[in-house]
Amino acid sequence: MHIGSNRTDNGRIMTGERRTKTLREAGEFGIIRMIAEKSAGGDGVVIGIGDDAAALRFEAGSLVLSTSDMLVEGIHFDLSLTDPFRLGRKSLAVNLSDIAAMGGRPLSFLLSLAVPASCPVDFLDEFTSGMLSLAGEHGATLVGGDTCASPRGLVISVTAFGEQVSDRIVQRCGARVGDLIFVTGTLGDSALGLELLRRGEKAGYPIDRHLDPRPRVRQGRALADAGLATSMIDISDGLAADMGHITDGSSVGANLYLEKIPLSRSYREHYRTMPEDMYRTALTGGEDYELLFTAPSSRREAVLSLFSEIYTPVTEIGSIIPEPGVHFLSPDGASFDVERGGYDHFLNRQGAD
Amino acid sequence: MHIGSNRTDNGRIMTGERRTKTLREAGEFGIIRMIAEKSAGGDGVVIGIGDDAAALRFEAGSLVLSTSDMLVEGIHFDLSLTDPFRLGRKSLAVNLSDIAAMGGRPLSFLLSLAVPASCPVDFLDEFTSGMLSLAGEHGATLVGGDTCASPRGLVISVTAFGEQVSDRIVQRCGARVGDLIFVTGTLGDSALGLELLRRGEKAGYPIDRHLDPRPRVRQGRALADAGLATSMIDISDGLAADMGHITDGSSVGANLYLEKIPLSRSYREHYRTMPEDMYRTALTGGEDYELLFTAPSSRREAVLSLFSEIYTPVTEIGSIIPEPGVHFLSPDGASFDVERGGYDHFLNRQGAD
Repeated sequence: MHIGSNRTDNGRIMTGERRTKTLREAGEFGIIRMIAEKSAGGDGVVIGIGDDAAALRFEAGSLVLSTSDMLVEGIHFDLSLTDPFRLGRKSLAVNLSDIAAMGGRPLSFLLSLAVPASCPVDFLDEFTSGMLSLAGEHGATLVGGDTCASPRGLVISVTAFGEQVSDRIVQRCGARVGDLIFVTGTLGDSALGLELLRRGEKAGYPIDRHLDPRPRVRQGRALADAGLATSMIDISDGLAADMGHITDGSSVGANLYLEKIPLSRSYREHYRTMPEDMYRTALTGGEDYELLFTAPSSRREAVLSLFSEIYTPVTEIGSIIPEPGVHFLSPDGASFDVERGGYDHFLNRQGAD
Repeated sequence: MHIGSNRTDNGRIMTGERRTKTLREAGEFGIIRMIAEKSAGGDGVVIGIGDDAAALRFEAGSLVLSTSDMLVEGIHFDLSLTDPFRLGRKSLAVNLSDIAAMGGRPLSFLLSLAVPASCPVDFLDEFTSGMLSLAGEHGATLVGGDTCASPRGLVISVTAFGEQVSDRIVQRCGARVGDLIFVTGTLGDSALGLELLRRGEKAGYPIDRHLDPRPRVRQGRALADAGLATSMIDISDGLAADMGHITDGSSVGANLYLEKIPLSRSYREHYRTMPEDMYRTALTGGEDYELLFTAPSSRREAVLSLFSEIYTPVTEIGSIIPEPGVHFLSPDGASFDVERGGYDHFLNRQGAD
């Protein structure tokens, strides 16, 4: 049921009345009922919304993957730049992306919301519709959560559950010296999208990437099931930082080649006259929600062939080295200083000593 | 490690410096590291803090119970009336209480925090110490979560996991006509405690009940394992509302006897001259985190004997009836109107027609 639509209930036209209804008027239980009505049962959901806790059945022999992300108004989103439907999708997407980065299959999730009492019910309706649309695309079911008042600003907390058998789960800590480094899709679009939104633009590929990121669920699971990845992470903090999580976790280092970083056409076009800004944004912008993973060099063809089969672009961008740190190198061998967004020939000379 | 303690690190006295350190200075990763260092591995934790998601092993044949509660500064707690240690305990307690109310064994939990950048690191240290102290009492392990900045006010979201075999899980919907209604402990203390705190009092039994509620984990699980309860809920919204969740869920009604409602000595003493306020607070105050459950009348002795064995007070307070609604009755048979906090002899006469 779409609450904003025209319909009659007990002979009254509901649209006008319900459009202006706020959380204060509908009450906490009214909101929970509205959300529960839209959420159908799913795989392994023995008890869903409405009891003290959900009860879930997972496949025997699998481990349960669980992850939680909190999105705070004014920090993670700006209600003047997004809409509730896409905010709902993104709030779940960032969690499904974490399940994907472990190689898991998402199954269900909990949603907790702190909502200002003045928030229109329509907003929450659109928000949950968006969230449930993404959930449906990935076979995940809403099984519970919490709704409460917020004195200031919207706070969204989602906990997602997935499963995968123990020996297929891909962690951050398994990268080995000599492994190749791959990334799915293109980087930097989301950060550029946010910049364009702030400048008043309303639509386009980078904006879509920022407001409605698509978690690489199918790809993460396919990699895990094929046993190809030695380590994996989703890019939320930016390539440089997330590569650092893998190298730190695996006690290795990484060489990444600037000219190999995958960039979309609209991204390249935007930065045509600012090549150093182009790299800085792509390496540090974050919120790409692409998968970054390592695989043995002997499996290069297997990786490329897997991604070709699942119609997903993947790019080899570097390799794992024994020396700690994440090193970005230009074609002439110069180091690119990520923080300053420029080439550091001094650093490079040091490295070459 | 207690960050506030005197110790030296690289020859410097850390106390003064670290006492005043804020989240802004320590950074998100610093906070996560601090929390991770205090959290040891536990039963079934295959991957804990530090990867994209936790990986948990549950007992084969068991269902996974999961519940989420959000606590918002200014709504659920007032930092001028509590301390971070007890706030940490309570944030986990309300979730463990939900696991208890399903008859489950708590195993692990995720913690998400939105924290103002000006928050002292010491506050978070005390908060997590408190939370982990309660976790230790119940064998639950912190396995992950999220930490982010909050533009205004602290927001805490905890997701707890437990397990129980399917046919022992106790839901809200199983109460049957003729069942007896029981409640653990005493009611109203927490609401009175909050009132006393607001009046400037600092300590005492009701205040302790409000700031540091003890979830009835052992009791919920014992009831479930013994197969004695037909329905169960923890009292968070108050006896009247939570009894209503059971009767609504079970499509029955309830008669509850005012003189049987268990009240502590300090609670009775406080309300000595205000008997109607006494009942209103006990029935609607909420945050008792006692267990409210139903059992067949043939199992009365088994229930009493079980609670005697586990040294927990339990009181039979009423019975399930076919007529919908929750009815509070005084010894003379008069109805007690919960909303008004007084006896409604008109209502009673109607009922007697």
